[in-house]
Amino acid sequence: MTAHSTSHDSLSPVRADGRRSDELREVRIARGWLDAAEGSVLVEFGRTRVLCAASFTEGVPRWRSGSGQGWVTAEYAMLPRATNSRSQRESIKGRVGGRTHEISRLIGRSLRAIIDVDALGENTIVLDCDVLQADGGTRTAAITGAYVALADAVAWGVEQGHIKPRAGKPVLTDSVAAISVGIVDGKPVLDLPYVEDVAAETDMNVVVTGAGDFVEVQGTAEGAPFDRAELDALLDLAVSGTAQLREIQAEALGKPLERRA
Amino acid sequence: MTAHSTSHDSLSPVRADGRRSDELREVRIARGWLDAAEGSVLVEFGRTRVLCAASFTEGVPRWRSGSGQGWVTAEYAMLPRATNSRSQRESIKGRVGGRTHEISRLIGRSLRAIIDVDALGENTIVLDCDVLQADGGTRTAAITGAYVALADAVAWGVEQGHIKPRAGKPVLTDSVAAISVGIVDGKPVLDLPYVEDVAAETDMNVVVTGAGDFVEVQGTAEGAPFDRAELDALLDLAVSGTAQLREIQAEALGKPLERRA
Amino acid sequence: MTAHSTSHDSLSPVRADGRRSDELREVRIARGWLDAAEGSVLVEFGRTRVLCAASFTEGVPRWRSGSGQGWVTAEYAMLPRATNSRSQRESIKGRVGGRTHEISRLIGRSLRAIIDVDALGENTIVLDCDVLQADGGTRTAAITGAYVALADAVAWGVEQGHIKPRAGKPVLTDSVAAISVGIVDGKPVLDLPYVEDVAAETDMNVVVTGAGDFVEVQGTAEGAPFDRAELDALLDLAVSGTAQLREIQAEALGKPLERRA
Amino acid sequence: MTAHSTSHDSLSPVRADGRRSDELREVRIARGWLDAAEGSVLVEFGRTRVLCAASFTEGVPRWRSGSGQGWVTAEYAMLPRATNSRSQRESIKGRVGGRTHEISRLIGRSLRAIIDVDALGENTIVLDCDVLQADGGTRTAAITGAYVALADAVAWGVEQGHIKPRAGKPVLTDSVAAISVGIVDGKPVLDLPYVEDVAAETDMNVVVTGAGDFVEVQGTAEGAPFDRAELDALLDLAVSGTAQLREIQAEALGKPLERRA
Amino acid sequence: MTAHSTSHDSLSPVRADGRRSDELREVRIARGWLDAAEGSVLVEFGRTRVLCAASFTEGVPRWRSGSGQGWVTAEYAMLPRATNSRSQRESIKGRVGGRTHEISRLIGRSLRAIIDVDALGENTIVLDCDVLQADGGTRTAAITGAYVALADAVAWGVEQGHIKPRAGKPVLTDSVAAISVGIVDGKPVLDLPYVEDVAAETDMNVVVTGAGDFVEVQGTAEGAPFDRAELDALLDLAVSGTAQLREIQAEALGKPLERRA
Amino acid sequence: MTAHSTSHDSLSPVRADGRRSDELREVRIARGWLDAAEGSVLVEFGRTRVLCAASFTEGVPRWRSGSGQGWVTAEYAMLPRATNSRSQRESIKGRVGGRTHEISRLIGRSLRAIIDVDALGENTIVLDCDVLQADGGTRTAAITGAYVALADAVAWGVEQGHIKPRAGKPVLTDSVAAISVGIVDGKPVLDLPYVEDVAAETDMNVVVTGAGDFVEVQGTAEGAPFDRAELDALLDLAVSGTAQLREIQAEALGKPLERRA
Repeated sequence: MTAHSTSHDSLSPVRADGRRSDELREVRIARGWLDAAEGSVLVEFGRTRVLCAASFTEGVPRWRSGSGQGWVTAEYAMLPRATNSRSQRESIKGRVGGRTHEISRLIGRSLRAIIDVDALGENTIVLDCDVLQADGGTRTAAITGAYVALADAVAWGVEQGHIKPRAGKPVLTDSVAAISVGIVDGKPVLDLPYVEDVAAETDMNVVVTGAGDFVEVQGTAEGAPFDRAELDALLDLAVSGTAQLREIQAEALGKPLERRA
Repeated sequence: MTAHSTSHDSLSPVRADGRRSDELREVRIARGWLDAAEGSVLVEFGRTRVLCAASFTEGVPRWRSGSGQGWVTAEYAMLPRATNSRSQRESIKGRVGGRTHEISRLIGRSLRAIIDVDALGENTIVLDCDVLQADGGTRTAAITGAYVALADAVAWGVEQGHIKPRAGKPVLTDSVAAISVGIVDGKPVLDLPYVEDVAAETDMNVVVTGAGDFVEVQGTAEGAPFDRAELDALLDLAVSGTAQLREIQAEALGKPLERRA
Repeated sequence: MTAHSTSHDSLSPVRADGRRSDELREVRIARGWLDAAEGSVLVEFGRTRVLCAASFTEGVPRWRSGSGQGWVTAEYAMLPRATNSRSQRESIKGRVGGRTHEISRLIGRSLRAIIDVDALGENTIVLDCDVLQADGGTRTAAITGAYVALADAVAWGVEQGHIKPRAGKPVLTDSVAAISVGIVDGKPVLDLPYVEDVAAETDMNVVVTGAGDFVEVQGTAEGAPFDRAELDALLDLAVSGTAQLREIQAEALGKPLERRA
Repeated sequence: MTAHSTSHDSLSPVRADGRRSDELREVRIARGWLDAAEGSVLVEFGRTRVLCAASFTEGVPRWRSGSGQGWVTAEYAMLPRATNSRSQRESIKGRVGGRTHEISRLIGRSLRAIIDVDALGENTIVLDCDVLQADGGTRTAAITGAYVALADAVAWGVEQGHIKPRAGKPVLTDSVAAISVGIVDGKPVLDLPYVEDVAAETDMNVVVTGAGDFVEVQGTAEGAPFDRAELDALLDLAVSGTAQLREIQAEALGKPLERRA
Repeated sequence: MTAHSTSHDSLSPVRADGRRSDELREVRIARGWLDAAEGSVLVEFGRTRVLCAASFTEGVPRWRSGSGQGWVTAEYAMLPRATNSRSQRESIKGRVGGRTHEISRLIGRSLRAIIDVDALGENTIVLDCDVLQADGGTRTAAITGAYVALADAVAWGVEQGHIKPRAGKPVLTDSVAAISVGIVDGKPVLDLPYVEDVAAETDMNVVVTGAGDFVEVQGTAEGAPFDRAELDALLDLAVSGTAQLREIQAEALGKPLERRA
Repeated sequence: MTAHSTSHDSLSPVRADGRRSDELREVRIARGWLDAAEGSVLVEFGRTRVLCAASFTEGVPRWRSGSGQGWVTAEYAMLPRATNSRSQRESIKGRVGGRTHEISRLIGRSLRAIIDVDALGENTIVLDCDVLQADGGTRTAAITGAYVALADAVAWGVEQGHIKPRAGKPVLTDSVAAISVGIVDGKPVLDLPYVEDVAAETDMNVVVTGAGDFVEVQGTAEGAPFDRAELDALLDLAVSGTAQLREIQAEALGKPLERRA
């Protein structure tokens, strides 16, 4: 036995699903899941399953009109039976809840961080992220999948001549991915499914660019407050997790996309 | 040439997608699509794709409380980018539109027609029918798929002892399926995709039991009013179409369903 | 006794209000009930009493703008104490219920089936159908009365020069009326009051043009599903009932209308 | 000529409809207009036409529960085409406007001023006042008619044994009526129709008991503020007008009411 | 003992807070309470504390556009814990209550009575009156304070050249103030705090101009109806109370206002 | 010149308001600002002014009922003219916006982190945080002030015997405060007023306990993503800022609170 294996032990299979502390669930990204959307992805982080649709429309919200710049926004929602017990539809309640708003805004900000709104021109891309099945990490799966759908919608816009990239510059300045990290039973873990999420003392969602810089850091003490060392450990895990997601996104985008005529 | 083949000619490939007038689109029913729901189905009528989730809960709405009888209800909705151009979410509009209400009520009535509410006991089954992709016939696909999800939820309820069938009687008294028919270019056709739907002079949705009786007949003249002969031809087509759907439902339900532990 | 009288027996006074199975309730149509509306009618089917007001306005909804065509739409509502027990106002609930939406849409479609939208020009006629007293058949009374109010509003529009009929062609291409039919105690009956409506196994609303063609057929099995023979019997009753309504409408419209200066 | 006739001259026919300054429009009160309501009245002040329905229900709002006292409340509304140009329905706007709220509360307070809530017991009477046609003075017509509907509902409650009057005391301690007064072209006038209402510099609604005491005085300067002398003149007119309304109410209630079996 | 002291006795310290019947609570008006608003005042009537902010914006509501005239409107609201027990926020209920609407409309009308809308030009001034602490008389404190905030906003508009007074004429044609009066324990009293307000048999709010004319008189019998003599006594009290408020307003406006750079 | 002053230079007066990078604005905490609330504070961070009211009520939300544990929640809102230009009221829009929801939830979580819900018993404390004037940092001022209001409400609850501390343990396990930090012109700064907030490339809100541990870390790249070094610098500033706030809170709470009888 070596120090390495000992260190490995500290990340060894203590998790209910057999993963190591720094291991992602199986991530799958299926592009072109919808016929009509300019970009669309069914993304899965284990049992969490989110349908991300990118819709391209000419024009921008009124407050941005005349700026020459485009806009990217997102709407997150969950089907009533995405969860273990059925929840009421927000359309029937007649209002969108705080959590839904919060996550929609987070997804929008994350994607705007990596797009050149000048190259986009006065066009809007809306990302609809609908959770078909929820098993923790729905917002991070949504961001990770939405980036791929956005990339396809931008490619479509360029092909159609609606988007005119600036000389030598990509419209998307980088990729972006997100992951959850948390402290469960006193140990930092990566990519929490529902059972770990409810048990976590601290819960953090981190959005990171392909270059490894932070777009968002949102950490919350659900139980006891966390100290600086714990925060540092969580950030390390998140950076390593999003680096893996960057590879999975790149691989998905590397394949040709067959569009319906 | 015989009278038969002549009659066949009149139903010959005049449709954009190459189908005969009395031919269904390819219908696929995938059971157990969700891990948590007591019954769930991804149903496809060609490109139309609807996720049907059946949620079993103890108790009934207040007005039915104390009756000893159960309740079955449905909620239909469409994802924003299910259609060619994106539509606004009803949750964001803050109210459910008339069309959504109408279809939700239709699905609920159709399923209540074939369940023994006494055997169900004071339990409620909610059918969530969310259209992931819409290419015409979303309400008929929803009813057809929801029946299968309902059958799985009822089976689950019986296994769990929540539902107690009455001696020698099934909880579901029959199956139920639905199909759209219409008059396009002056000819009656079965199972209209979107392009036919918008062109139809008359549009009819028919809900039929496995025994071949009617649960709902909803015919609307979109253009010129229709006469009795046209109405009869449409009903004939619908009865034949729903008989085929009954077989597809039976085949789907014939396979064992593996539930997640 | 003859076969005829036997057949007559089968339609003989079995109904609570003494009517034959194929007999309408007393129908009254009072035109010009409101001073300001371009057309208005208080229509009564027995105790059911609906105030129909036709409002003419220049312009059309945005989506129709520039088409050169007009629009006809309807809004149905019920006063809180139109019914036996008081119901809550939809304005206070803050939302319009599914049933209200459904009926409003039905009335609008029925009237659009018999108007030449090209002759109407880019004008809109809104039919407000407010149920003052409800005793079954409110939607069919509304359609039947709304047609008369619409005819007066169109006549007003032509007089004022807002509507320009196309050479030799009437703006209203036909009349339209509606009636409910149903199976009560196993027998098909025409024009159901509330007590029959709640007892009906099958309930059908049929909208028919003056020429006898169908605009809408909406049949629902409230109890056991219905077979083709029952459906045919109901349609026969409905066609005969709407033919009588056509005469009553024509008689009402035959009288001069005195408009308030 | 006498001082009296001179004074009469100052109230002489200067009004568009030929009335004297202190003259009511023709007031009609038709009881029993609805079959089901415990009390109902169609009240007309000239062309203003309001349907008042009194609904009796056992029980009181939660905050009054256990007090042994009853409750009387009112809901005022206007049909879309009650007015010269159509207005949007509040049910469709999704909210009740300030004016509607204000008038509903005023009607409720006015009726509560003349009922013995102890005798009423823990029962609620709701007055629905729906304006079918509006030509000024809708709130005052509503209060005046609602009193008569309330009297019929109370009589019904006593007959049915739901309301138990206290020995020797009437449940309704007095009658109540309301009228509008205003200053038009510098002169105080009684019972303003729409054309006077929009021209009035000062507009006042006054609710007065049969005994001549005030329940509500609501005066508003629409143009220039008004002085004490003008206020006094308006109050005099209102007291004389409501005295006439008291007689008309009494006459209406003096006739027997035939209730539908 | 003299007649004077006897009369004084009838107004002598019978009130819980030691005031005479015709005595105001301590009134304080702090101008410039907000840095950004064009006019702002923290007004206090005893423990009642209202923050009034006047916001100047170019343009008028659509229905007034092109008239050359300005508009003044108001919005009244109460913080949840302004009262003894916490009340729910109207933003969370999703609708503004009737009382809120009523008071907002009253404040707006009161201020429009004393402004020259022609001189205002096509500009709008919105008065936000937020009750921070409520101890009776919130609407009258709001009107009294809002007048001062309006005066500052108008002065700002004139200084900035947005408002152009007409030759020799002030933009504000007079001042305006409001006070509550009521009958408590059979005696008329001025400026009711909460404890008196709930005990009052009659409650009246009166809005009076600096010249002593009435803008609004709103009297309500909470218990027994009131007679003409009581009404007269209340009006006398109100006129004397608003005359005192006029002096306090004038004194507040007499001091220089230091605006934040 | 010393190394210290050099280091001081790097934090020297580059800010518009003359503060050093690590310097708070003037912070004022006025306790007992409202007469009725169990705890209340007017907190100011420079020109930002937030009224925090703590309302104690017996009972807990239904989902927590029977747990023996209490609940603390918060509602944040902004007066319409708290900002430079007036914003529309959420009560009038009919819905609470995403930002409002987000901040309300953040305040609630922050306070729940330092209270012993077992000692609180089945009681609820609601913290209403209404922004009277906004100049950046409203959510951090709200949390900092709400802690003090909560402490007073808890003391009240203990005095009244509604809250029973567990032997030797305080009900509030620690204090909590919050501050904003950000990167402006490439430099990390503490406690951003509005002008810096809109210019910040990265904006972070940090909630820290008296012990110096993290309750919330919410960092957002408004412009370019931020790297680990920047994140570390911001966290250092936040920890030092909240340590100062802890002292100011302690000083405010050190004074006796005079409650209105």
